[in-house]
Amino acid sequence: MSRLDSFIRRVSAQRDCLNMLAGMIGGADGPVLELGLGNGRTFDHLRSLFPGREIFVFERKVAAHPACIPDDDFLILGDIFETLPKARQRIGRPAALVHTDIGTGDEEGNARIAAFLGRHLPDLVAPGGIIASDQDLGLDGWEALPLPEGVPAKRYHLYRKR
Amino acid sequence: MSRLDSFIRRVSAQRDCLNMLAGMIGGADGPVLELGLGNGRTFDHLRSLFPGREIFVFERKVAAHPACIPDDDFLILGDIFETLPKARQRIGRPAALVHTDIGTGDEEGNARIAAFLGRHLPDLVAPGGIIASDQDLGLDGWEALPLPEGVPAKRYHLYRKR
Repeated sequence: MSRLDSFIRRVSAQRDCLNMLAGMIGGADGPVLELGLGNGRTFDHLRSLFPGREIFVFERKVAAHPACIPDDDFLILGDIFETLPKARQRIGRPAALVHTDIGTGDEEGNARIAAFLGRHLPDLVAPGGIIASDQDLGLDGWEALPLPEGVPAKRYHLYRKR
Repeated sequence: MSRLDSFIRRVSAQRDCLNMLAGMIGGADGPVLELGLGNGRTFDHLRSLFPGREIFVFERKVAAHPACIPDDDFLILGDIFETLPKARQRIGRPAALVHTDIGTGDEEGNARIAAFLGRHLPDLVAPGGIIASDQDLGLDGWEALPLPEGVPAKRYHLYRKR
């Protein structure tokens, strides 16, 4: 499979997961958290799916399309290893949905990020809230949700807080 | 439609067009030309589709994944407004397929690029060869090929040299 094929599958899986989850978090109050703004496409998709919710975005350095940059109040700038542990206070209440797709090509770095997220994300999520992650966060005690049809196993990991 | 939806459609259209064209240029001899390397995903797709053909890539400044960078002999570095008019000599023979997806968000810039490509690309293509372009190149006298099923009109433009 070419990198173009693989990329299309990855981005489509992201969209399909988010679209599915939009119908599943109705019962959970709270904002949406997006880890990594990137070019802003996913943020734009999230705000189309969740027009009534606050969306906080974590980003080290903004390089997105100008139309896809959150207002300052919802942009948490800095290294996620520093900003995430303090985010609960900044955001003020637990989230209904967290989406993270900040894996890189570097396996060791990914393992370090996944372990860090597995430690710090749970405190940021409301009961009934969901984490959607490109990496396995090993969240014991959370409900593992099935992926949408057509999304291959392990491409995304969906966890609901009990 | 969110930018994520729109992006997925655009990249999928590119893949679907290239896959279709791979079955249509068998009768034309010559290399494949790719305008813009970017992250190298499309180049990677082209080399998977055309393992037996030389693939020349035009790029101003290489910033692709290390595994998706052409050998120096097939990388035509520089501003395309300078390199393209001299490319026939460098490449040595007309191409079977040219793919160009270098449009930007800037309409005026796109019109300037499209007019430039419409003047210079025809000389680089063999009879029976095809140009696939994200922009309308206004190639009078060329056969306009139908798009693959599911690709919306004007998302790509496919021209075959008579």
